[in-house]
Amino acid sequence: MTNFRSILVRLIVLCAVAVQPACAATPPNQSGTAMLMTEKQVFTTTQFETYGGEIIPEVKVGWESYGKLNDAKDNVILITHYFSGNSHAAGRYHEDDAEPGYWDAIIGPGKAIDTNKFFVISVDSLVNLSAYDPNVVTTGPATMNPETGKPYGLSFPMVTIRDFVNVQKRVLESLGISSLHAVAGPSMGSMQAQEWAATYPDWVPRMVAVIPAAQADAWTTAALEQWALPVRLDKHWNNGDYTRDNPPKDGLVAALMSITLQALHPDFFNQQGKALGYTPQEKGPLEDIHATHSIINWLRSRAEDRADLMDANHLLYLVRANQLFVAGYRGSLQEGLKNVKAKTLYLPAETDLLLMPYMAEAPHSILKSQGKNTQLSYLKGALGHLEGVADIKQKAQLLRRFLNDETE
Amino acid sequence: MTNFRSILVRLIVLCAVAVQPACAATPPNQSGTAMLMTEKQVFTTTQFETYGGEIIPEVKVGWESYGKLNDAKDNVILITHYFSGNSHAAGRYHEDDAEPGYWDAIIGPGKAIDTNKFFVISVDSLVNLSAYDPNVVTTGPATMNPETGKPYGLSFPMVTIRDFVNVQKRVLESLGISSLHAVAGPSMGSMQAQEWAATYPDWVPRMVAVIPAAQADAWTTAALEQWALPVRLDKHWNNGDYTRDNPPKDGLVAALMSITLQALHPDFFNQQGKALGYTPQEKGPLEDIHATHSIINWLRSRAEDRADLMDANHLLYLVRANQLFVAGYRGSLQEGLKNVKAKTLYLPAETDLLLMPYMAEAPHSILKSQGKNTQLSYLKGALGHLEGVADIKQKAQLLRRFLNDETE
Repeated sequence: MTNFRSILVRLIVLCAVAVQPACAATPPNQSGTAMLMTEKQVFTTTQFETYGGEIIPEVKVGWESYGKLNDAKDNVILITHYFSGNSHAAGRYHEDDAEPGYWDAIIGPGKAIDTNKFFVISVDSLVNLSAYDPNVVTTGPATMNPETGKPYGLSFPMVTIRDFVNVQKRVLESLGISSLHAVAGPSMGSMQAQEWAATYPDWVPRMVAVIPAAQADAWTTAALEQWALPVRLDKHWNNGDYTRDNPPKDGLVAALMSITLQALHPDFFNQQGKALGYTPQEKGPLEDIHATHSIINWLRSRAEDRADLMDANHLLYLVRANQLFVAGYRGSLQEGLKNVKAKTLYLPAETDLLLMPYMAEAPHSILKSQGKNTQLSYLKGALGHLEGVADIKQKAQLLRRFLNDETE
Repeated sequence: MTNFRSILVRLIVLCAVAVQPACAATPPNQSGTAMLMTEKQVFTTTQFETYGGEIIPEVKVGWESYGKLNDAKDNVILITHYFSGNSHAAGRYHEDDAEPGYWDAIIGPGKAIDTNKFFVISVDSLVNLSAYDPNVVTTGPATMNPETGKPYGLSFPMVTIRDFVNVQKRVLESLGISSLHAVAGPSMGSMQAQEWAATYPDWVPRMVAVIPAAQADAWTTAALEQWALPVRLDKHWNNGDYTRDNPPKDGLVAALMSITLQALHPDFFNQQGKALGYTPQEKGPLEDIHATHSIINWLRSRAEDRADLMDANHLLYLVRANQLFVAGYRGSLQEGLKNVKAKTLYLPAETDLLLMPYMAEAPHSILKSQGKNTQLSYLKGALGHLEGVADIKQKAQLLRRFLNDETE
């Protein structure tokens, strides 16, 4: 392997592991433009009523923005984040941050989502997986219940993608914003983007759904359940009643191992195996049932590194929010998409094994049959689902044209 | 859905659940030929040395046969079984058995693997998953250790696909057999078939690998680990030290749910969701984090039904045997396949997501590059990995010609 290739592989691996990559990001100060800086802000709202009809007394979420809100407040692009992500979509908090936000390759001055022109904003989800990340502000089972002085745990109300959207709407309204130029997001972010277009059509003239799902079909619901099961099996989970000192870490680590595996594709994963010197005939696992192959040790150690900032109950709530999703929440996808006014752009990844291209083709074809303006284009490459996060730059031109209403 | 279609779906579902289907089986006494009957027999051998160099004092395994061994003892076809299967490859034990063996569609009088001509034999694997199935005889962690009077548990030596093959070889030798007409098997059975061809080339003139893997690549090893993780998390697993009265059933059930899911394809799985009336917006899971969607309840209840006859430690050993596999065990697949003399037939399934077609294309292309006689043909259909078990009849003609050395 050449040195360049080895660096490339290391970078891609970094992306794959963190599910928060920025491979294609411009290195600081090398592009000639100023480094994009951002900071996490906090939004608080009270008496938030969930889709299920329950009240959360106080909701706090973090948000970030890039670029400037114009006087007409009509240059807003909302970015909605993926399952294990947060509102750090682009830029850096400090000049020496190792990596910028996950979509930095397409968000910034002069980039596809041009912050010289647009005010780009993103909001941490409810029940965000990274409940203990100092750069994430979220409300969920790990939040102190003001009534008891203890974490909500499983007494936290069930929340849905609709609720994520409704929190975002309150953030936007608090800034005096009453419509968007566009909404765009990958994976779980695509659910939020489609939910925006379906439920608040007057807000959304343009919607971009990357590595998307317009609903959780039976297959997706079952795939998601594989992430919940190990948490529930961990004896430290204790039916959701645990402290941060004694969390169900093994269960959470097992879930994260599955998430990383399912977000990738064999083509890439086996390249990583090669880099590790993986071989089926490794001595340790042949001699000891407690030992595992190098590739498993690698998966586990990356998951362990991430697990400390994450919360197991939040994972369960996030899985459930995804399982309950159908754009529009009107019984069927056909009904749910009926009110969409946005022109839409679907970007599935050809090698995606988690949300396969059929998940994008279905809403695209429904919207088409409803006479709406919709486009679909496939991300290429060996990264699987992660193409939509780590390798989004390949669609920069298409995105730019879509957002600027330029014809092909 | 028409009535016929509903019956068809029910049949396919049965297959999917049991991973032991016989959809295409001839109904008893309707084909005009006699019903194929079989019975489980038991083979015992002592001082069995494993690939890892350990000794198992006594090995007992079950086996079945169909058709008659000829005087020359040169009409033998060995069938090697899949992960959750056993030696019940065809026929029935009793006339009123609900289902025949899993490959009954192609094994029997006048069928592709013609029992009027061939003596077809199959052997229960070591560490067979169904340790408590009255129709399975196996040796593994659940077996009584004669030295302690207690189950071996994790003190049982690690075993490999090579060891499964070596036990089969002893069974065959005990019958005076010293070569095969062919060896054939699906999935884990394909590993055994290829191992036979690679390690005992003089025994094997013909080898058929269905939904195959010639080695556990990094991806496969990680996918398999997802089945082991829930077992290890179950508090009743207790580091492998449990009794049959108090087994790690929840962990085993979670593993079986993953296995069923991964062995299928969304096309089929979502059809099953439809049959159940699955919708993302189900009321139970919206209201209660402990409730789950209909499709999850279905997956779980099928897994629960099966788990009582299975052993969790056996699952871990079986996972490990698969993870350690590379045909020939000579460091690389190229080396491992060097000694193969058999003409070979690879039958991957187009929609397989567990062992994707590239897993068949790799050994096929290596064998080709080594100047050997090898063919590859794709199973079609929506069942995913299960095509190679539930829907093997579609390759009956090809199999017949291959076994009879007829040209295309």
